[in-house]
Amino acid sequence: MENETQSFEAIVNNNLSGRDLEEFNRIHFGRKDNLEVKLKDSSLAAAKDADFEIAAYAFPAKKEETRPPRIVKVGVIQHSIAVPTDRPVIEQKKAIFEKVRKMIDVAGQEGVNIICFQELWNMPFAFCTREKQPWCEFAESAEDGPTTRFLSELAAKYAMVFVSSILERDENHSDILWNTAVIISDTGSVIGKHRKNHIPRVGDFNESNYYMEGNTGHPVFATRYGKIAVNICFGRHHVLNWMMFGLNGAEIVFNPSATIAAEAGSEYMWNIEARNAAITNCYYTAAINRVGWEEFPNEFTSADGKPAHKDIGLFYGSSYFTAPDGVRCPGLSRTRDGLLISVMDLNKNRQIKDRRCYYMTQRLDMYVNSLSKVLELDYKPQVVYENEK
Amino acid sequence: MENETQSFEAIVNNNLSGRDLEEFNRIHFGRKDNLEVKLKDSSLAAAKDADFEIAAYAFPAKKEETRPPRIVKVGVIQHSIAVPTDRPVIEQKKAIFEKVRKMIDVAGQEGVNIICFQELWNMPFAFCTREKQPWCEFAESAEDGPTTRFLSELAAKYAMVFVSSILERDENHSDILWNTAVIISDTGSVIGKHRKNHIPRVGDFNESNYYMEGNTGHPVFATRYGKIAVNICFGRHHVLNWMMFGLNGAEIVFNPSATIAAEAGSEYMWNIEARNAAITNCYYTAAINRVGWEEFPNEFTSADGKPAHKDIGLFYGSSYFTAPDGVRCPGLSRTRDGLLISVMDLNKNRQIKDRRCYYMTQRLDMYVNSLSKVLELDYKPQVVYENEK
Repeated sequence: MENETQSFEAIVNNNLSGRDLEEFNRIHFGRKDNLEVKLKDSSLAAAKDADFEIAAYAFPAKKEETRPPRIVKVGVIQHSIAVPTDRPVIEQKKAIFEKVRKMIDVAGQEGVNIICFQELWNMPFAFCTREKQPWCEFAESAEDGPTTRFLSELAAKYAMVFVSSILERDENHSDILWNTAVIISDTGSVIGKHRKNHIPRVGDFNESNYYMEGNTGHPVFATRYGKIAVNICFGRHHVLNWMMFGLNGAEIVFNPSATIAAEAGSEYMWNIEARNAAITNCYYTAAINRVGWEEFPNEFTSADGKPAHKDIGLFYGSSYFTAPDGVRCPGLSRTRDGLLISVMDLNKNRQIKDRRCYYMTQRLDMYVNSLSKVLELDYKPQVVYENEK
Repeated sequence: MENETQSFEAIVNNNLSGRDLEEFNRIHFGRKDNLEVKLKDSSLAAAKDADFEIAAYAFPAKKEETRPPRIVKVGVIQHSIAVPTDRPVIEQKKAIFEKVRKMIDVAGQEGVNIICFQELWNMPFAFCTREKQPWCEFAESAEDGPTTRFLSELAAKYAMVFVSSILERDENHSDILWNTAVIISDTGSVIGKHRKNHIPRVGDFNESNYYMEGNTGHPVFATRYGKIAVNICFGRHHVLNWMMFGLNGAEIVFNPSATIAAEAGSEYMWNIEARNAAITNCYYTAAINRVGWEEFPNEFTSADGKPAHKDIGLFYGSSYFTAPDGVRCPGLSRTRDGLLISVMDLNKNRQIKDRRCYYMTQRLDMYVNSLSKVLELDYKPQVVYENEK
């Protein structure tokens, strides 16, 4: 880890200052001042003890005459696995629970209302191995599996909503597996679940070997703190996935992810996609990535001509929030566990919608018409040739 | 101008070096080395003489067994207006022609195959005034107006394709105006035109006072050098506009724009949207912005509570290219005229499509179904409430 860049933000802050730093922040993040929010001393101490990063930023909105502000504290947690992947499944899961519980406790002390974890946060991201055992044994019921039970208790304790991405085993439908986000309400009950709509077939992300495209549409969950939705990992490359959550009224869309820095990886796109989604859909987004290396017991190949190996490369963390105007906060580190908090006024969504009119100028009728034509097997693209006339 | 930041890239290059710069470039631009392409001494001298910036970068692709490389040189030109806006319309237009001709000549010497200009490149961006006269007099025929004639001659001379965004007067349909991109082929003839699909109603961009939503669909133009399309300015906020060009087979999509840095401006989104479009649609994009200040004869207000004034703020230039994998090159300056050249292998598009499978995993049938429901007046969004069960 000592050779890894700590973060994009660290490079910038270690080298820039004064007007250069202000201009960089204005052009890159969208504002000169990141509006850092002060945290409790006890939170800073607890984070130091448990060796995780903690930071908080504000996204205020304008005062309105007819609505009070709707301030929500939203947290994202990125973390590495807790014990080696050759340990028993139950031990691996419990070790992650133990580590993450400390981070949730700090979030609870800070009054965080909603927390989202990275994709499949309770297990190593083992699909690169293409092995079914023991990894499928991490799957559990969305409604009453050990992970949901673990979070339900903490949800009720802290009146906290959780977005929990897990490998789901659907016993009521022939034992099949899904990549599922479970939404646990502030009372501790399960509000509902959403299954990943777009499944990757890219490099080491052989996920289509493990589960199929989701069948839950684009649900928005009306929580006590706002309307939220989940665009799981690979769905961030799919603009229509983001769009449908917006059309269903989402105010915050989480993108729990597992993505790597390695050659041909996604790191340079990480600032682009969740941020573009916030802009075009006028809602808050949160992009959450795993962190660290995960070494597996057996070697595997990556279909890139290179020798077999036992790890997929660095999950680069860098989780961050974007406001509906496209302004983002600095991200968490590339290498450390972290809790990032955003103090956001949800009134901002409608203010931006009113200002920019992206929905009104969307011309959805034209696109429904055009896209339905594209679906026809004999679709003839609209191509203009020079000598056509 | 002397108080303006020259460019985002200048801030970075003036302050970072060694591994920090490499890591910055890798995480931000997508590669450690920007693959700058050497230009002719005569081009550099001509650019110096005429006081414009010039730069070139390569986007290579992998060698294939069954297709030869398809290398295309694509240029974008950003420029300020050439004489004050109170000069006669014809004089203003001619002065821009004269200035831009020098830039085209250099592009011709460099063997550039396709050039795209900024939005409404042959006139000041006067819609902030809300005045109809004299600005509507800049409108002309797409097929044989003075601007098309000016470019046709240069197109034939240099075997160059032009993407020319103009204010179009449609005399065959009741004299109405359109915001139109004209595609002029390497032979000098007009291949076709595309009219801006999404019209802004934001701040000083009162464009809906001047012209209506385009009626030309999403044409892709099969030029000698590749299939190209144009997403005009405000359309860059609309992901479906980008998407339809991709579904129609575009290999390069140009985004000629006019957008400002002022408070609540777009500058921090400039790196996001055209780049996201390249990623999600697996094609090259070029984002081209006007540059400089444009002062108008009469004062106008900006509906922001501030006093009347005569200019809209800085058009920040910063034009750039993105490859289908999301890697981008450094942008042109924020304040100077410039010619940016990209030496791109169009084979890269299909290579990225094959690798990432974004089109295959798109689930267009699901979205056509969902979006058509959204169009219903009594649409009920998919919202899940806690006590629903």
